[in-house]
Amino acid sequence: MAASTLKPVLTFLIISFFTISQISCAQNHPLDPLTPSEFLLVRTIVQNSYPTTSNQTLTFQYVGLDEPDKQTILSWHSKPSKTPPPRRVSVVTRFEKHTHEITVDLSTSSIVSKNVYKGNGFPLLTLDEQTAANELPFKYKPFIESVKKRGLELSQTVCSAYTVGWYGEEKSGRIIKLSCFYSNDTVNVFVRPLEGITVVVDLDEMKIVGYSDRFILPVPTGEGTDYRLSKQRPPFGPKLNNVAVFWPDGPGFTVDGHAIRWTNWEFHLGFDVRVGAVISLASIYDLEKQKHRRVLYRGYTSELFVPYMNPTKEWYFKTFFDCGEFGFGQSTVSLEPLADCPSNAVFFDGYYAGQDGKPVKISNALCVFEQYAGNILWRHTELTIPGEEIREVRQEVILVVRMVATVGNYDYILDWEFKPTGTINVKVSLTGVLATKGVVYTHNDQIKEDVFGTLVSDNTVAVHHDHFLNYHLDLDIDGEVNSFVKKNLVTKQNPKNISPRKSYWTVSSQTAKTESEAKIKLGLKPSELVVINPNKKTKLGNDIGYRLIPGIISNPLLLEDDYPQIRGAFTEYNLWVTPYNKSERWAGGKIVDQSRGEDNLAVWTLRNRSIENKDIVLWYTLGFHHVPCQEDFPVMPSLSGGFELRPTNFFEKNPVLKTKPLEHVTLPNCTTKH
Amino acid sequence: MAASTLKPVLTFLIISFFTISQISCAQNHPLDPLTPSEFLLVRTIVQNSYPTTSNQTLTFQYVGLDEPDKQTILSWHSKPSKTPPPRRVSVVTRFEKHTHEITVDLSTSSIVSKNVYKGNGFPLLTLDEQTAANELPFKYKPFIESVKKRGLELSQTVCSAYTVGWYGEEKSGRIIKLSCFYSNDTVNVFVRPLEGITVVVDLDEMKIVGYSDRFILPVPTGEGTDYRLSKQRPPFGPKLNNVAVFWPDGPGFTVDGHAIRWTNWEFHLGFDVRVGAVISLASIYDLEKQKHRRVLYRGYTSELFVPYMNPTKEWYFKTFFDCGEFGFGQSTVSLEPLADCPSNAVFFDGYYAGQDGKPVKISNALCVFEQYAGNILWRHTELTIPGEEIREVRQEVILVVRMVATVGNYDYILDWEFKPTGTINVKVSLTGVLATKGVVYTHNDQIKEDVFGTLVSDNTVAVHHDHFLNYHLDLDIDGEVNSFVKKNLVTKQNPKNISPRKSYWTVSSQTAKTESEAKIKLGLKPSELVVINPNKKTKLGNDIGYRLIPGIISNPLLLEDDYPQIRGAFTEYNLWVTPYNKSERWAGGKIVDQSRGEDNLAVWTLRNRSIENKDIVLWYTLGFHHVPCQEDFPVMPSLSGGFELRPTNFFEKNPVLKTKPLEHVTLPNCTTKH
Repeated sequence: MAASTLKPVLTFLIISFFTISQISCAQNHPLDPLTPSEFLLVRTIVQNSYPTTSNQTLTFQYVGLDEPDKQTILSWHSKPSKTPPPRRVSVVTRFEKHTHEITVDLSTSSIVSKNVYKGNGFPLLTLDEQTAANELPFKYKPFIESVKKRGLELSQTVCSAYTVGWYGEEKSGRIIKLSCFYSNDTVNVFVRPLEGITVVVDLDEMKIVGYSDRFILPVPTGEGTDYRLSKQRPPFGPKLNNVAVFWPDGPGFTVDGHAIRWTNWEFHLGFDVRVGAVISLASIYDLEKQKHRRVLYRGYTSELFVPYMNPTKEWYFKTFFDCGEFGFGQSTVSLEPLADCPSNAVFFDGYYAGQDGKPVKISNALCVFEQYAGNILWRHTELTIPGEEIREVRQEVILVVRMVATVGNYDYILDWEFKPTGTINVKVSLTGVLATKGVVYTHNDQIKEDVFGTLVSDNTVAVHHDHFLNYHLDLDIDGEVNSFVKKNLVTKQNPKNISPRKSYWTVSSQTAKTESEAKIKLGLKPSELVVINPNKKTKLGNDIGYRLIPGIISNPLLLEDDYPQIRGAFTEYNLWVTPYNKSERWAGGKIVDQSRGEDNLAVWTLRNRSIENKDIVLWYTLGFHHVPCQEDFPVMPSLSGGFELRPTNFFEKNPVLKTKPLEHVTLPNCTTKH
Repeated sequence: MAASTLKPVLTFLIISFFTISQISCAQNHPLDPLTPSEFLLVRTIVQNSYPTTSNQTLTFQYVGLDEPDKQTILSWHSKPSKTPPPRRVSVVTRFEKHTHEITVDLSTSSIVSKNVYKGNGFPLLTLDEQTAANELPFKYKPFIESVKKRGLELSQTVCSAYTVGWYGEEKSGRIIKLSCFYSNDTVNVFVRPLEGITVVVDLDEMKIVGYSDRFILPVPTGEGTDYRLSKQRPPFGPKLNNVAVFWPDGPGFTVDGHAIRWTNWEFHLGFDVRVGAVISLASIYDLEKQKHRRVLYRGYTSELFVPYMNPTKEWYFKTFFDCGEFGFGQSTVSLEPLADCPSNAVFFDGYYAGQDGKPVKISNALCVFEQYAGNILWRHTELTIPGEEIREVRQEVILVVRMVATVGNYDYILDWEFKPTGTINVKVSLTGVLATKGVVYTHNDQIKEDVFGTLVSDNTVAVHHDHFLNYHLDLDIDGEVNSFVKKNLVTKQNPKNISPRKSYWTVSSQTAKTESEAKIKLGLKPSELVVINPNKKTKLGNDIGYRLIPGIISNPLLLEDDYPQIRGAFTEYNLWVTPYNKSERWAGGKIVDQSRGEDNLAVWTLRNRSIENKDIVLWYTLGFHHVPCQEDFPVMPSLSGGFELRPTNFFEKNPVLKTKPLEHVTLPNCTTKH
């Protein structure tokens, strides 16, 4: 379903350029994502143990690699043998209206553990069941009647599945709610809501179990909402100039299976149905020490919480967990060569298990490319020495890993940028279509109440909302045993006898001993947030470390005891630090749909475990409060945010001091062709 | 002195490519920077009125365009006539040990006003007087003795001028202090300080008036500190791949004198000795309204405050104001084609008046280039409509204006990025060399006291410091009469009868009536900071506006009553708003060297003037606290920050909806050549 129809010619052009040298017959890596044949094997093994009948189906809600223990991975990585550690797979199914958690061993083709999940909440929704649910209203008389009553064509109506959250109910069924939209004149369905109608679907029964049609509001016009080029009328513009970026020596990176090597970096790039791209075992070559040194054991987007701020009956429940409910990998869309990624990009397909357990392919799910943007790596002009003018400049080239997850209306462009300086920049750009609500209004002057958003078009309010992306950052700074240090910048009074200066600031370092000491609300105190290796020092005796430099800071505004906030409690702090625990993978918890906040980052850290001189994991939340504006309509220009992981006394000196300047490449005999 | 010896061949390659079509015989613009012949005319006029003798010199400390009134500019701009408004020039001189403020009218070749400055402080330092001062110690016996005592070669020693600040002195002389460095084995002089020595120079007398040599510390080694390629030894790396960026249709922008037009943007690019690049009259073409609409009347870096955090006798005074003391334009360095700016850049020379009033040329002081970085302007994949898969992606191209100011050891890369969406991104990247202090230590374990910085090499501490860049942003959103609105995001309780949701946030707008209501400390309250045009609305009735999206937030840590903080009081708030006042140009005040905080942004705003429905100016401070690390040595990898000016209900809809995708350009017949 998420597989795109790529223009084969373009794809061929791009891929063929790189294929020969790079995709060598790579040895399997224990962190490689599950292959299509592995998915099929899992399916067979599980189906054999859970026999289905005509009344009783088995659905695969999650199938993902059950990664070997970190120590197993690390020892394999330090000395890769032909036989990687045994492949195990975590499976979550629905069977007999229960959630089953199963571990499959692929080497023995057997189930090594299974249990029925007894807690609250439900697993990841499959795309198949969402599609099936979305089709139910079209055979449901009251809905057909509602559409007719609005003077609309049923054939032009579409519905979309929304998770319902949890609002204090004692018992929960596995239900979703559908919102429906009108698609004539436009493919931009999300800006044409049919307000007033709520359809409740039981996913296990796959039938409508609730229906209400409370009021009729005008459906906003489709006029001017289509964003496709073919639907635009002149005048066009603004016109951007064409450009060709040419790498005369070919790509500077190599791809060996899922292992990527570029300049001083190497890392493994995985893919998972729940979180999308996974960066593992990132290490950087130290020219001085002449070896690779570890930086990031694993990094990925662990959860994305998107609460909408309309508390009325038809909207209040819209507080989504895009990773835990919809799957960021499952929502990953095919990247368009030359558009989503530049001409030098190398693409990777992604696979996940469909509801029936069979592999589903996402073509071009990830891309990797080198980027030269005209930026400066470092420079200096020196004018102090009489008679000499010294100028030394180095240009910056970086490596970008990109995926795009489209969860319904929104598109999230997720970039991991690797720099030769050791910096990892993590960036997200929000684009796509806003979630809108139909209203009677066509002008702000008519509005005398809170409409919970911005009037962005006639009869169309784009609703206030937040995006909180949590990143799981298992840093292993020069080894897995690390500590988290707040380097607080504190003002000091200067004694009068020293100088007439009254004050200065200095650094007062505080090592977090337990989880509670590492819950950080940013912006309150000036401090550098550093992960150090307490067992290693630079030659000068500085702590070897990496700092996290935050970007824009956003904190949650929901009441702490409000239900969505209890579920999204990982947003209470911008940063948390936990001891490594293989089972703690997603900040919003393992089972998220209708979760009750009983198993998530906020709960785990209540144990207040020791984190000093331990293998630790950072959980950083990047947030956006979004007050929509007319520019965001009918499709939204990218809005970007991010954060930086930057070495601080990790290297003995500037690691790009000995990087040579780029050579000037002229293209004297080019015949350009569009 | 700042003019660089460019490699003429490279320059020719670049410049020649663009010269023919673009640099047309442009009509003079009233905001054009002063030309060499204008500088000479000013010199003659002023010299005629201030006759010098052998004892009495006249020095030009500042010569800059005295811009016509905004209304004059605006009416000229709306209907440019052949004769622009009269050219007037602001001149600040030192003559007879007084600071003279002079206004020269070039059309009548006359002085129209003059007065002797009676306030505290002194004007911009010239490069010539700094150079002269730096040479004094080499004929000064006690200094020669001090160098000898340290076993160093005088011929390998250099000195550099530092402003002294103000620390409560009743009377101030026009003095600076010199710090000296050792340059054998390396051109990286700033990392080889001669500690213990302070040389005090009276600039008007141009003689040493104070000298102390309090202690001897080891001069850090030059070994490994040279950053020049020619001095590096193998192994080299990390190796970055060569790249050529080719714009087959030529540049997408035109240069007409100092007017630049690119896609939907047009603006004037000026240059001033004090602030460097000045963006004026930036407006954007509205495809729907079919006209240019005004955004930014003027934007520039108004001040840069860099307090160091070592309070000891030899260091406490190092609290620099790089614009008001040293001149960001005067400190602008020649950009290296293909390195500081990419191959498609167009360069602009800059001119300023030397101390003798004669024009000094800075070749390639500014550059302008289009940038394609593989980023996405907007996109959406739509999977909701059965049987259809829709994917629409637009690539982003932006226009960058760049300058680099090197103030002693530090290099500031200052970018203004214009986007077709209406966004202006303002970015600064810090690079260059850290200010270091010599110490006895070669390992952290030896350190038992506060050394006010980080040990980054043997005997070398890089000192803690801040960078606070203040931007003067005279926004004219769709006209000059604007208001400043805080759109506060406030949590609301949801009544129980509405839904089980307990809370949500909504927007509560607050228009700042006076200056005191617009002093913003960021990070305390979630709010959008918007400049609106209160007299215009979108068709839907939304306020037409632009928002300022801050980047990293840094607040001052010095005590409020400490002398440097009183002088740098513009840092007390991250954002201030004032009514337009032609005389309020620089946040740190007009006369900054040894200023006492009597004339700056904090003082002006005490009047608490009305700013509602007025022509207003935003003053935004971008700050960095810098705890140095070993990676910053011997030359520092760029560290970037910035902020965004983004339209919010300025346009009726997404202004790049009708931008066509870039065409794919293949380069089939290229013979590449290095």
